[in-house]
Amino acid sequence: MPLRMSTLFLRTLRDDPADAEVASHRLLVRAGYIRRSGPGAYTWLPLGLRVKNRVEQIVREEMDAIGGQEVQFPALLPKEPYEATGRWEEYGDALFRVQDRKGADFLLAPTHEEMFTLLVKDHYSSYKDLPTYLYQIQTKFRDEARPRAGLLRVREFIMKDSYSFTVDDAGLDQAYADHRGAYLRIFDRLGLAVVPVQAQAGAMGGSRSEEFLHPSPIGEDTFVESDAGFRANVEAVTTVPPAALDEAAIAALPAAEVKDTPDSTTIAALVDVANQLAPRGEGGSWTAADTLKCVVLTAVLNGNERRQFIVAVPGDRDVDLKRLEAGIGELLEVAGEPGVEQATEADLARHPSLVKGYIGPNNESGLPFFVDPRIVTGTAWITGANALQQHVFGLVAGRDFQWDGVIEATEVRDGDPAPDGSGPLRTRRGIEMGHIFQLGRKYAEALDLKVLDQNGKQVVVTMGSYGIGVTRAVAALAESHHDQKGLAWPRAIAPADVHVVATGKGEEIFAAAEQLVGDLEAQGLTVLYDDRKKVSAGVKFSDVELIGIPTSVVVGRGLADGVVEVKDRATGEAQSVEVAGAAAAIAGLVRSA
Amino acid sequence: MPLRMSTLFLRTLRDDPADAEVASHRLLVRAGYIRRSGPGAYTWLPLGLRVKNRVEQIVREEMDAIGGQEVQFPALLPKEPYEATGRWEEYGDALFRVQDRKGADFLLAPTHEEMFTLLVKDHYSSYKDLPTYLYQIQTKFRDEARPRAGLLRVREFIMKDSYSFTVDDAGLDQAYADHRGAYLRIFDRLGLAVVPVQAQAGAMGGSRSEEFLHPSPIGEDTFVESDAGFRANVEAVTTVPPAALDEAAIAALPAAEVKDTPDSTTIAALVDVANQLAPRGEGGSWTAADTLKCVVLTAVLNGNERRQFIVAVPGDRDVDLKRLEAGIGELLEVAGEPGVEQATEADLARHPSLVKGYIGPNNESGLPFFVDPRIVTGTAWITGANALQQHVFGLVAGRDFQWDGVIEATEVRDGDPAPDGSGPLRTRRGIEMGHIFQLGRKYAEALDLKVLDQNGKQVVVTMGSYGIGVTRAVAALAESHHDQKGLAWPRAIAPADVHVVATGKGEEIFAAAEQLVGDLEAQGLTVLYDDRKKVSAGVKFSDVELIGIPTSVVVGRGLADGVVEVKDRATGEAQSVEVAGAAAAIAGLVRSA
Repeated sequence: MPLRMSTLFLRTLRDDPADAEVASHRLLVRAGYIRRSGPGAYTWLPLGLRVKNRVEQIVREEMDAIGGQEVQFPALLPKEPYEATGRWEEYGDALFRVQDRKGADFLLAPTHEEMFTLLVKDHYSSYKDLPTYLYQIQTKFRDEARPRAGLLRVREFIMKDSYSFTVDDAGLDQAYADHRGAYLRIFDRLGLAVVPVQAQAGAMGGSRSEEFLHPSPIGEDTFVESDAGFRANVEAVTTVPPAALDEAAIAALPAAEVKDTPDSTTIAALVDVANQLAPRGEGGSWTAADTLKCVVLTAVLNGNERRQFIVAVPGDRDVDLKRLEAGIGELLEVAGEPGVEQATEADLARHPSLVKGYIGPNNESGLPFFVDPRIVTGTAWITGANALQQHVFGLVAGRDFQWDGVIEATEVRDGDPAPDGSGPLRTRRGIEMGHIFQLGRKYAEALDLKVLDQNGKQVVVTMGSYGIGVTRAVAALAESHHDQKGLAWPRAIAPADVHVVATGKGEEIFAAAEQLVGDLEAQGLTVLYDDRKKVSAGVKFSDVELIGIPTSVVVGRGLADGVVEVKDRATGEAQSVEVAGAAAAIAGLVRSA
Repeated sequence: MPLRMSTLFLRTLRDDPADAEVASHRLLVRAGYIRRSGPGAYTWLPLGLRVKNRVEQIVREEMDAIGGQEVQFPALLPKEPYEATGRWEEYGDALFRVQDRKGADFLLAPTHEEMFTLLVKDHYSSYKDLPTYLYQIQTKFRDEARPRAGLLRVREFIMKDSYSFTVDDAGLDQAYADHRGAYLRIFDRLGLAVVPVQAQAGAMGGSRSEEFLHPSPIGEDTFVESDAGFRANVEAVTTVPPAALDEAAIAALPAAEVKDTPDSTTIAALVDVANQLAPRGEGGSWTAADTLKCVVLTAVLNGNERRQFIVAVPGDRDVDLKRLEAGIGELLEVAGEPGVEQATEADLARHPSLVKGYIGPNNESGLPFFVDPRIVTGTAWITGANALQQHVFGLVAGRDFQWDGVIEATEVRDGDPAPDGSGPLRTRRGIEMGHIFQLGRKYAEALDLKVLDQNGKQVVVTMGSYGIGVTRAVAALAESHHDQKGLAWPRAIAPADVHVVATGKGEEIFAAAEQLVGDLEAQGLTVLYDDRKKVSAGVKFSDVELIGIPTSVVVGRGLADGVVEVKDRATGEAQSVEVAGAAAAIAGLVRSA
């Protein structure tokens, strides 16, 4: 049976929703695929549900093809397994926590590593049972601080999450490769361009990890690539440091010297003052790159504990909080993913020895002091002298000051060298569509998942976890497949194959259209049929372009000449097709595309 | 591709799970369809997910056939719409409430009337848009006080809920009839016997309502039926009262008389004492039916406020708390569904004027006083005199005492008359599989859903809501389709059509089985294939019976004679089938059944 516009639960909108910032949000709402039902929450309407189901089916088929087995967990889970791995706390505010009527704690799962680990533990005990790949396509919850951009960042979404269980690292490598291949096939079938990039493992723990980013100017992720093929999320990019000086070379450097630098609390002012005070030598002048900026930051642990630290970065570089977040947990020796923020006035007030605007190494605060990888032994800096209106010149790293650790603290810029030596990097924005992780033994150890190996020895199982955002894929497909007039779905996931439009008033037109719809369905095609009688041709054509079915057929004026108009939504190409045999011809078009 | 037992994520269990009370729970866990993942929560394993999906598909097809359109709402919903209808409070402890990081209130929806009402309001404004039937197959949450019986009573479950929107009562009647028909077809296709019975509307509000009960001794619902076809949930059964006496007849009754009745705090003791004190007249003796029992009960409002009231019932009848709950809200003039409990010692202590064991009408507590419908004007009773060791004889209703309201307060018994005069009732137990409600205008009024009617007048839309428990249907199917050895699924929802078992050690056996599996799949059948090589035939046969695929085929010893053994799981009938042409023969069996 066709979807009939006369009864379909659909009201296309001429105007953009007031809160819509991005194209997918605007168009999915206007074309009647989704409707907002609360903050960061959308209802799938009949057309939207069809697209979502088709995306799910492609994901399912490719997961089955690599031997994945589908299961389905509840969304509401007991706290205990997440306490065992520490994630009950680590997730912080992003976790929806729920109490039952007896006061027992539950969570709405953002991801299911713990539960899958326990399920396999409950079933298996031997290496012979492995490898096992399990997956689910299921509703996930995340208490987003700022839900935005329609389906791109919501609080409740559908994800395919899968988990591999293998007996050793080689098995994990294979499972990872299997999933990586399946993901590339999935995105290819969906018609969604993605770039796999190296990623930080983040809250998941584990080692190797890649994200599949859909390049898009509205993406929240930034990644880099080099001509020679290096690709990584900026959070995973490592800085190529300069060479350190040896002892003799350091000894040859002039001694550090404190100078009065009035009113030089900004890098620009400091550079000006420095060039007035003393030439750089060899005819050059001081630049921001010669200065060392010591920034006080706050790590927020478990959503509330605020712990300050200082990072020193070259003065010409901005601090990148997200890159800092990726490494700070390890340096501070805390579990989870602390957030990093600029220190507030209140934070600073806790450390009165710090002289604002003139902070340098060797300050008396006692705070952890970390440096950007560019601060290597032997580099000399103009930096704060920890006294009002004073800076120190020629302060040499490793000679005049030490540090508690090195951290990737600054933004990655176009032109920065790729860490693998493959040349300069370009930065791009992307939407995260999928993420694959080699978890290693973290979860299996925490939850005691062991099997007997071939030698009868208990070994901890190796695990991987792999996610694809189904909800987000629908949004990204809308982002990448639309024009000014509306959506233009790829065939693989369109809510129907053909959009048949009857225009005019004659009964013979509707009779012919009805006949064509039946013939198209007999060809195995799905049809959206605009059978509305009191709606103008103009409105119907606008809806065709807004809704974005790949092929449309207008049954109208041409009927007198024995033809219908067939149009390709993506290319705009139109052609007249003889009514006799039209269904077969259209089926041919649809299948060849 | 067949499901291969060698790799299928499945471990059948020889022993019943310790917490399993009912057959469906025992067998679904033992046969590897579900696994417990928390209190009142189960994970669908690969075989279980297949059954669940098949149930969903049948529901979907029948909903589509009556013009239903599928959508999908979030589970996590904002509080406001549920406040507007009063259900945020009324649901009491059964509702999972959640706060986001900003402290805003949300709920995990147990049902979606409010959201569908708002969605239609957002889309439609004219009678021309109606009728509209919308549905979803979606995860629901309910904070059950006592999750039990495996999938029968869980905290997270899958339900098909649909909602009809019509312009008037006639439209609602049609929508109700459409859904009723669809439900009967769904249960018929599922192979699940159900009895539609009249029901109380309960928390839904509204008028006409029926439940679809699957008769089962483990059911939590009790329903009644008469030979002539009256069927109702006991909560919806009305008592046929005796005729009231007129004034003259009442005047002829003897005056009430207080008598000493030492140690008669039970009905049995009171009847003994009464028969010692005074004969009943006409040679009869007093029975419990002559006594009036005044019971102090507590209505629990919004999960915490405890309000006492008294009901008077004939001494030979037990109070039925569930039947009381169905009516008490209206009598106490409170919204929602108060729970009703026996008064505790603490409750009673709040009313010191009540003389425990001797409570009668006209007591001094001031508590609301309600009576069973059998207490009609002119009936005379032996009842408490509100004084220690004393009862009053011949206390006449309407003459000697009055009441604040009449309520269905006592259990329905086998032999009670049907309210429609169709003869004596029988009581039976059943599992609630579905529930359909004529909501009328309650939700549309609360949320202001109106459309213009044919005369251009704003009218409030009429609504119905209709639910089927998908999760529970799987459990009920297991309850009704099993034997001592395991499950025996109906063909329509079995996880596979055929279970092929290779037994023996010869490679030729596995080769022949593999060939047969391919041939069966070519016939369009789905196959579970036991290809395990190190598992004994006995274990494999046990699994066949436990897992319960409708048809099994053993490829083993018979192969030497050119035959395989085909067996029907439900009837146990076995037959030898020639290997050549076996697939076609088996497909014929499967399709004819």
